[in-house]
Amino acid sequence: MCVIKDFATLFEKAKKKGPKRIAIAYPHDDASIEAASLAEKEGLGFPIFIGDKESLGKLVKIGKIVDAKDRVDAVRKACILVREGEADILMKGHTSTSMFLKGVLDREIGLTSGRTLSHVAVLESPNYHKLLLFTDGGINVKPDLRTKIDILINAINFAASLGITCPKIAVLAAAESVNLDMQETLNAACLAKMGERRQLGNCIIDGPLALDLAVSKRACRAKGIESKVGGDADILLAPDIASGNISAKCLHWLGEAKIGGVVLGAQKPCVMLSRADTKEEKLNSIALGVLSVHTDAVSH
Amino acid sequence: MCVIKDFATLFEKAKKKGPKRIAIAYPHDDASIEAASLAEKEGLGFPIFIGDKESLGKLVKIGKIVDAKDRVDAVRKACILVREGEADILMKGHTSTSMFLKGVLDREIGLTSGRTLSHVAVLESPNYHKLLLFTDGGINVKPDLRTKIDILINAINFAASLGITCPKIAVLAAAESVNLDMQETLNAACLAKMGERRQLGNCIIDGPLALDLAVSKRACRAKGIESKVGGDADILLAPDIASGNISAKCLHWLGEAKIGGVVLGAQKPCVMLSRADTKEEKLNSIALGVLSVHTDAVSH
Repeated sequence: MCVIKDFATLFEKAKKKGPKRIAIAYPHDDASIEAASLAEKEGLGFPIFIGDKESLGKLVKIGKIVDAKDRVDAVRKACILVREGEADILMKGHTSTSMFLKGVLDREIGLTSGRTLSHVAVLESPNYHKLLLFTDGGINVKPDLRTKIDILINAINFAASLGITCPKIAVLAAAESVNLDMQETLNAACLAKMGERRQLGNCIIDGPLALDLAVSKRACRAKGIESKVGGDADILLAPDIASGNISAKCLHWLGEAKIGGVVLGAQKPCVMLSRADTKEEKLNSIALGVLSVHTDAVSH
Repeated sequence: MCVIKDFATLFEKAKKKGPKRIAIAYPHDDASIEAASLAEKEGLGFPIFIGDKESLGKLVKIGKIVDAKDRVDAVRKACILVREGEADILMKGHTSTSMFLKGVLDREIGLTSGRTLSHVAVLESPNYHKLLLFTDGGINVKPDLRTKIDILINAINFAASLGITCPKIAVLAAAESVNLDMQETLNAACLAKMGERRQLGNCIIDGPLALDLAVSKRACRAKGIESKVGGDADILLAPDIASGNISAKCLHWLGEAKIGGVVLGAQKPCVMLSRADTKEEKLNSIALGVLSVHTDAVSH
């Protein structure tokens, strides 16, 4: 079992694996171009800009430009490039998330693999002894048990691509008891048993677990909870998009945790940066994309 | 509008207001007795211990003891004491949360006021400029819009009892757009409009807001969101118990935020401490109970 403490470690790994070809759909904003330049400078990526050739020609001095007539066309062409092996990573530029994901999910030209798409946020908290993978605060609104299994398989594969080979997974809820009024605790019990029966591969799963139990052995002792995951979780499975999104943002915006994120479950990694991301966050996310290039393509 | 920066300020206010009589239901554990002793020592509370008189007589040197034959009887007698004005605050001892709340909600001997009970966690984050009130991560599992209105009214009254007279309220969701697939964003839009129409009293409400927008003006600028609440929220309304519980615990357990909590909506404040609470957290919660003694009794 490998423990990864911080983004600096991931970054070194990603640099050794890079540069990877990044197809950026409609990079007509400062944020996208800045991200591409940073990735190129750090040896993580070779950018392929897909958008209006003329205006992009004036803006960028690196990488390659592919002409596209509008946002939809840019997403389409970027997907095709990745699908046909001309690029390794798909990245969202100045398009809406829904337009971008519509392209990814298109059966004809998209990057679907038959698996569920999911988002994972990687967090480096100054108060935790290793990286925390928080999923899914980005894509699946109210996942049912079947979807949660897919989300976990994506996260387990992704953890493996980072070097975490037997992740400890905490299925989060508001409390540690199975409660008939809280569907997430019933799902958690099922997922924990599936883990015990080795139905989800090489991992250790426990739940329902409240957040304090997932990350603190002291809390486990105080509450008398024995858990192989307690106080040492690698992956936190959130009950739904709201809880995953709000919690990860709490850690980042108020808890001084560094953050990066990537979309899993497609044929190739997909990177979606936010306008509110700093340079560092952009690079973190691109590094996660680079690290998941091969492993993530393995289907289940 | 009054800004309260930290628990130290609340603590001074509570000391001036105390000591209040605290009826502790079945304090047969170290945690309860420690909490009572601390409250007494700090001048916040005068403890009334309700449980087995003989064994309690050997354990406690302060306060008053009322005999009860078991847990259920202790909760019952504690509720009656508070109901009849013999005590100001009800506190959970070594009983389950459900047994305790069952007593509070009992129509005959309980403390119901016709309002919804809700939990509020108060957080002091080193990375925020004032206290944050997070609700409801403790009682209402999947509140509908009607229940969310009650939760907000409880929180607004509570904020007033702390001295925050026109709180800024962020109705949290995973994103800032109204999304037909996310019920919490529809609820948020309704609550924001109700706030604008002054239907919820003296407060400013906006939502849906992602967490970053609620607490960071930089995030608002980056995403082009104009909001009277953005970057300066006092109260965060979580979509449900899971998101509220996990997020507040993220801030406390990984984000170095100090925490306290109290149950609102009953005739008198109810304090439920956790076995995993430190001394400081116990005192914070008791101080919140003391501060909400009068204001919370006002019905709507």
